[in-house]
This record gives sequence, structure tokens and C-alpha cells, in this order.
Amino acid sequence: MGEYLHDQPITPRTDSEKKALLNRLKRIEGQVRGIQNMVEEDRYCVDVLVQLSAINAALKKVGFTMAERHTKHCVSHAVKSGEGDAAIEELMEVMKQFSK
Amino acid sequence: MGEYLHDQPITPRTDSEKKALLNRLKRIEGQVRGIQNMVEEDRYCVDVLVQLSAINAALKKVGFTMAERHTKHCVSHAVKSGEGDAAIEELMEVMKQFSK
Amino acid sequence: MGEYLHDQPITPRTDSEKKALLNRLKRIEGQVRGIQNMVEEDRYCVDVLVQLSAINAALKKVGFTMAERHTKHCVSHAVKSGEGDAAIEELMEVMKQFSK
Amino acid sequence: MGEYLHDQPITPRTDSEKKALLNRLKRIEGQVRGIQNMVEEDRYCVDVLVQLSAINAALKKVGFTMAERHTKHCVSHAVKSGEGDAAIEELMEVMKQFSK
Repeated sequence: MGEYLHDQPITPRTDSEKKALLNRLKRIEGQVRGIQNMVEEDRYCVDVLVQLSAINAALKKVGFTMAERHTKHCVSHAVKSGEGDAAIEELMEVMKQFSK
Repeated sequence: MGEYLHDQPITPRTDSEKKALLNRLKRIEGQVRGIQNMVEEDRYCVDVLVQLSAINAALKKVGFTMAERHTKHCVSHAVKSGEGDAAIEELMEVMKQFSK
Repeated sequence: MGEYLHDQPITPRTDSEKKALLNRLKRIEGQVRGIQNMVEEDRYCVDVLVQLSAINAALKKVGFTMAERHTKHCVSHAVKSGEGDAAIEELMEVMKQFSK
Repeated sequence: MGEYLHDQPITPRTDSEKKALLNRLKRIEGQVRGIQNMVEEDRYCVDVLVQLSAINAALKKVGFTMAERHTKHCVSHAVKSGEGDAAIEELMEVMKQFSK
């Protein structure tokens, strides 16, 4: 792991960024609990699958928001410091996993 | 909506099926809360993205388990009753959404 | 491999089904050649990626058309013959791969 | 479209890069033709779907190779010129489409 692959983002998330992310994640958590209720109530499988698709879509949105921020801050910082390649390879690796 | 597109599965989920599904969904709920903690602690974006990918994979597994059960019960029942086409089209529609 | 997992569809594809599929596949082949030209002409990567996404979408459409037909014919036939489970598991396995 | 969103890559693809890409695209073209043969011969749908999945996977690989190169060259160049944000947003937009 090189100097530009970190434990934390190079620019800390602002409070409003954190809040926006947490709100979205809490909504997703609520959706997952909603599906638990649907299972308890023995709801129709297709309706459950529609809800699962909605959660997947919401998680993808959060992921792309994070990936964009990461590229604008950490990856860009690495690029400017002449250390871009490792950061870009790391980014692509995680995007590959994420797009499965 | 025809006779074989229902509010509930044609064969109710057994208690052990429900329990297995709920356990998986609770684990996913825990993973979503774990990501909230990572955001609070301002953890490295790539690590968060890896966790998001893991949740996506877990949701897909739950979805495919459900789709398989649905096909074995509801869709098969519809097929035997000569009403298969509507049930199969509904299944494919939701699989399309789900595989995005 | 059981009696209902075959070398050929249980109901042979009609000529018009074949023709429709082949037309779509020929269009996709043309799109792949189009991308080769873009690479030869050193076109902008993002434009190439947009075209790759279009091909992926077209392939998914063909795949879902096939999966639907397969379920309406082969899987339904297996279900009616009391051999549905193996056919359904095979279907889900290939849908999993396909939705990656 | 800003100064750093181009018709061509900022660093032209080398001959060996082009050749490697073209070889992969030609193989994909061959796979698409192979599926046409399978349809002509009325081959089992599941076997065709397995082949379609293989093409999808191959296209994703080409896409990620291109996206990585694009980020290392065009996006990095834009970042160094203080024009990174537009290039990064464009990249994320195309990755979103591509990961569907």
C-alpha cells in the first residue's frame, strides 16, 4: 500500500456530506427492515423482489456518489503528486466488484 | 392481474424458510449499519465501497433464493393450471429489474 | 443431466423466432465491428464506453428474450412432467451468471 | 463540453494497445457469430445463455481496460490542468451506464 492509499479520505468528509450519506444509508436500512416485515407477513415473492431491486439501486447510487467524491479528492490528489496510477488501479478494482 | 398473480405465495413459506431469510436480512441490515459507522468515522472511501459491494452481493443471493422458490411454487402452479405465460412474464420482468 | 435438460429446445424455434434473433445478433455483431473502427480511428474512450454499454444492453435483451422463451417451453414442459425442480435450478444458475 | 472532453484520447493509443484491444474485440465478434450458429442449429437455450454471459463478461473486461486507461491519461491530464471535476463526472456517468 503506497502513500496515497489511505485509512481515511485525503479531504475529510464535511458534516453536510456525512449527514446526506447517513440519511441515505438510514433509508436503506429502513428498506431492509421493510423486507423483513414482508417476509414475516408472507408477502408475494415478486413484490419482495421489486423491493430488493429498489435497495440495490439505492446502494448503487450511494456507491457512485462515494466513488465520484473519492476520485475528485483522493485520486486527484494522488495524480497531482505523481502517484496516480496506484490510486486509479485501486479505484478500477473496486468499481469492478461494485458493478457485478 | 390474473388469478395466478397473488398477494401471497401459493405455498406459504415454512417457518424454517422464513427464519433463514430473516437471518440473512438481519445480517444485511447489520452490514448497512456498519457502513453508517464507517461514514461517521470518516473511513477510506474504497473500504466503504468494498463493503457496499458485499451488501449488493448478499442482496442478490437473497433475491435469487426468492426467485427460485417463487418459480418452483407460484410459477409452477400457474404452469400446471395453464396460466403459465403471465406468471413467467411477470418473473422475467422482475429479474430484469433485479439484474440491473 | 436429467431427461428434461436437453441439447435442443423442447419446442424447436420457429423460423420467424430464429430470424428475429439472428437479426438482433447481426446488429450486435455490427456494433462490435463499429467499436473496432472506433479503436482504429483512436476515438475518445468515453464514446467507446458508451457504445460498449449499448452492446451490453442489447445482449441482455437477447438473453432475457431467450430466458423467457426457455421458461415458457422447456421449463414449463419439465414442470408439467413433474421434473420442474432440476430445470428451474438450471435456469436460476444461468440467470445468476447472466446478471453479473 | 469543456477543453478536456475530447474527440480523441489525450495520449493517442500506441500500436500495441490498439492491437491488443482489436484482438479482444475480434474474439468477441467471433463469439457473437458463434451464437448465431447456435441459434441456426436450434441449440439448447441454456447453452446459448451461458455463451451470452461469456460475451458480457468479455465486454466488461474491455470496458474496464478502457476506463482505466482513460482515467490514467485523459482524466489525470484534466486533473493536473485544474479541470478534473468535469472529466470525473463524465467518467462516473459512463461507468454508471456501463455497470447496468
